[in-house]
Amino acid sequence: MPSHNKLTAMAYNLLKGKKGIIFGALNSQSIAWKVAQRAVQEGAEIVLTNSPLALRMGELNALAEECNAPVIPADVTSNDDVQNLFTKSMEHFNGGVDFVLHSIGMSINVRKGIPYYENNYEFTHKGFDISALSLHRVLATAMKMDAINEWGSVVALTYIAGQRVFPDYNDMADNKAALESIARNFGYFYGKKNKVRVNTISQSPTLTTAGSGVKGFGGFIDYADKMSPLGNADADQCADYCVSLFSDFTRMVTMQNLFHDGGFSFTGVSQEVMESMGK
Amino acid sequence: MPSHNKLTAMAYNLLKGKKGIIFGALNSQSIAWKVAQRAVQEGAEIVLTNSPLALRMGELNALAEECNAPVIPADVTSNDDVQNLFTKSMEHFNGGVDFVLHSIGMSINVRKGIPYYENNYEFTHKGFDISALSLHRVLATAMKMDAINEWGSVVALTYIAGQRVFPDYNDMADNKAALESIARNFGYFYGKKNKVRVNTISQSPTLTTAGSGVKGFGGFIDYADKMSPLGNADADQCADYCVSLFSDFTRMVTMQNLFHDGGFSFTGVSQEVMESMGK
Amino acid sequence: MPSHNKLTAMAYNLLKGKKGIIFGALNSQSIAWKVAQRAVQEGAEIVLTNSPLALRMGELNALAEECNAPVIPADVTSNDDVQNLFTKSMEHFNGGVDFVLHSIGMSINVRKGIPYYENNYEFTHKGFDISALSLHRVLATAMKMDAINEWGSVVALTYIAGQRVFPDYNDMADNKAALESIARNFGYFYGKKNKVRVNTISQSPTLTTAGSGVKGFGGFIDYADKMSPLGNADADQCADYCVSLFSDFTRMVTMQNLFHDGGFSFTGVSQEVMESMGK
Amino acid sequence: MPSHNKLTAMAYNLLKGKKGIIFGALNSQSIAWKVAQRAVQEGAEIVLTNSPLALRMGELNALAEECNAPVIPADVTSNDDVQNLFTKSMEHFNGGVDFVLHSIGMSINVRKGIPYYENNYEFTHKGFDISALSLHRVLATAMKMDAINEWGSVVALTYIAGQRVFPDYNDMADNKAALESIARNFGYFYGKKNKVRVNTISQSPTLTTAGSGVKGFGGFIDYADKMSPLGNADADQCADYCVSLFSDFTRMVTMQNLFHDGGFSFTGVSQEVMESMGK
Repeated sequence: MPSHNKLTAMAYNLLKGKKGIIFGALNSQSIAWKVAQRAVQEGAEIVLTNSPLALRMGELNALAEECNAPVIPADVTSNDDVQNLFTKSMEHFNGGVDFVLHSIGMSINVRKGIPYYENNYEFTHKGFDISALSLHRVLATAMKMDAINEWGSVVALTYIAGQRVFPDYNDMADNKAALESIARNFGYFYGKKNKVRVNTISQSPTLTTAGSGVKGFGGFIDYADKMSPLGNADADQCADYCVSLFSDFTRMVTMQNLFHDGGFSFTGVSQEVMESMGK
Repeated sequence: MPSHNKLTAMAYNLLKGKKGIIFGALNSQSIAWKVAQRAVQEGAEIVLTNSPLALRMGELNALAEECNAPVIPADVTSNDDVQNLFTKSMEHFNGGVDFVLHSIGMSINVRKGIPYYENNYEFTHKGFDISALSLHRVLATAMKMDAINEWGSVVALTYIAGQRVFPDYNDMADNKAALESIARNFGYFYGKKNKVRVNTISQSPTLTTAGSGVKGFGGFIDYADKMSPLGNADADQCADYCVSLFSDFTRMVTMQNLFHDGGFSFTGVSQEVMESMGK
Repeated sequence: MPSHNKLTAMAYNLLKGKKGIIFGALNSQSIAWKVAQRAVQEGAEIVLTNSPLALRMGELNALAEECNAPVIPADVTSNDDVQNLFTKSMEHFNGGVDFVLHSIGMSINVRKGIPYYENNYEFTHKGFDISALSLHRVLATAMKMDAINEWGSVVALTYIAGQRVFPDYNDMADNKAALESIARNFGYFYGKKNKVRVNTISQSPTLTTAGSGVKGFGGFIDYADKMSPLGNADADQCADYCVSLFSDFTRMVTMQNLFHDGGFSFTGVSQEVMESMGK
Repeated sequence: MPSHNKLTAMAYNLLKGKKGIIFGALNSQSIAWKVAQRAVQEGAEIVLTNSPLALRMGELNALAEECNAPVIPADVTSNDDVQNLFTKSMEHFNGGVDFVLHSIGMSINVRKGIPYYENNYEFTHKGFDISALSLHRVLATAMKMDAINEWGSVVALTYIAGQRVFPDYNDMADNKAALESIARNFGYFYGKKNKVRVNTISQSPTLTTAGSGVKGFGGFIDYADKMSPLGNADADQCADYCVSLFSDFTRMVTMQNLFHDGGFSFTGVSQEVMESMGK
């Protein structure tokens, strides 16, 4: 693991003057939580949001205080809620936003331990609505309200199960594939309209509350770590990467699915994995 | 265009002894229609199916007669209908099936001319159910009923909009991305269980009744043809390719998205397109 | 492993009337050897070729007799030899060829056990010339001589190390990446000129004489087999797949890298691999 | 085009304390030239290098003065020169380097206007040596000398012709495919050894001295601009992106080919291109 202290202790004002909305921080393990902290450390002002249920379960108020940020609840499956979120955020910022983090995903099939090939389609639709269509709803609402400033940056978190099969990832694989497609398509339309860029970050498996819901996750994290030349990327490092994508250093990167995974995605096999199997 | 007559006149008995189910033939322009004809010509026995509505609108009975095939209606959004389809097919064949063609797609947002960034999410869910989840339902039902024989082959038709943005393809892009993910995931599970392979064919734009619903489709077909070193693949050629994937010559090809497009997918630009733009 | 006997015992005349050149058969373990047998079984006439050195080391005469095929030696690093090969082949066939198999690869760095990061560049250039540029030389010569008939099909064998890192594959990874690029580019130019299609097949690791040269190959074959839902594809199955790509059923497939690997390429991890690691 | 002045006028000290080597700056149009300026502006110390010939043709001394950087000539096809470069650089920095930019490419076939399918293989080998193997030589030498510090970052510039065919890009396409493969493989080995990351940036077509050598480049730049939702990325923006990849914000990104192209790579077709063709 890299010694990360130096970087988090150091701020570059990389997001100075920028305003952003962070979806999906639940507790201090959440990637979104780290992104919020890191963005503020780099000079941004932010609004925090999550579903009413997540707000009750999580500890977002502590983060809000630390970041001096308002919390505006929004159910991402409700057009009205999302519209209200942008209205309130624009009032708060006295203008549009410069960046958005979408860190939202949920599968009832996963939660209930229903195997992929026995999925309940009512649950599938619900998961698709929350995990994938939510990004469409956020961006369609923002476009309609002209809520994201020119050269704004939108990042959604995803996972490589959108490209390859990880048996326990279940219907979240299909949701991530759809999410990445939605990001690409809005990257086209919102790019044309207002130079807004949209990308997904495909992050190493990360021990968050959401990740923990996936069966056999501990063993899998170990496998991914052994397969990745630099080891798994952690939540702090993901926050750093998000900041670079919100900054002006990456203005022409759009419609991409960006692997942030220590090299997992392009390693066919590692010596460590071969050795573990040989035992 | 290749002179295709020789091949369609010639049969190799490539599918002799195989039984299959063909979803989605509407009329003689349909790719599924050509696949049905070609499969029978190559010695297969088939069952034809489509939704009750499509059966009323289309001309499937003529094809059924030509192919000596029963028509078993099934609404692919209904678990019961899909189960009934497999039950009746297995009765008809007196055993399991060896191949399945999924050629199903529908977007109400496209039909109503609603731009991608203004999509109605009720329509989106309906399109997702028909265009993507239907493959899940078909394969989950088949797995549960053990309806596909060992070394069986499943092909679903898709389009490159699942990977890159074609602005007028609308929410069908996201549906195709999800469809391809579902194919991959069942390729894993059904492969492990019973050596069944599952692939998608990403076909050139084709002038079918479904294709005609996409805005500006004629100009687009011309563009794709100019961009493809071999020109666009037509429905007859797609049927040939499907037959090769149903045959025993391709048993170890699975979980793939296979471009059948005259080279469009890996051409960055062609001289013809550059010349057309220079005018 | 599939019972393969039925298929190899059965011929469909799929290549009836077609003429082809097979590069790279060394002995009965070679994939090219199986392709030659299978093509002839399906009605093709063929010419066999290999380097003078390989002809001395291998057992090609036995295959030539079995296939009733002439052997025309050619060093693929020599323009003259390749030109002579096509001249003689066209004389033998009394016309052009319909298909070509390129199954050629060699790395001196691999043979000498030199790690990738210590490669000798003289060896690298030699390996690049034989393993990658040879395809360019074959196709450039064929284009110049108009040696491949309209709708002809060219297949070169490759490996997924062209996309992802397999540490022991060494500089053959870079050679395969270049080979696939050469296939794509000729797919464009030869497609435009004469409707010739060019594809690569990315095959499972296969126990051939060439494969055996890679360090730790046995353990790796086992890993790949565990990772692939259908298991590793073997040489016989690869021959079947080649035949399908030489046939008229796949005329519009070009410029593609086609995985023939039992699903390895799109499996992120399998349950079997996870279990092996957990031990 | 974005108003870029604000950013280039603003420095964040993003590379404070870092040392780097910049290959390939020729004149003020070069991407490497901009990267050198931008890196220094962000607090880095650098060494500039190019071939003796390029040093005579170009204007590197002016840049060296501006950047307060030594110029150390090196022919990247010479092991001795590359070793000397690292020796001198480490003496100059009194330690290892933190980042390397590889912006090197040359094809004699392109320069002489020889079509791809008539390439002279002596020229091909020379171009491969300079354009692709040079990255291998630089990284192998650095690994042997332990010349790159832990968490160092290597970036090589490439082009999408490594994935798709652009007819006039000629044998540089194959060189770029090999270059990207070399980057991946060293990303594995150097990552394991010393946490060094290696990536390629696949940049929009850019009007540099090198780019100008490609036939019909002006019309092509216009096509790419019309196809890209954000327009083509320019050299200044590429420099910004390089800086982000040299910084500590992207430590876990490795073995990736990163498109920096305003969305070109994932746009199937744009409305502008369709309209231009319709004229």
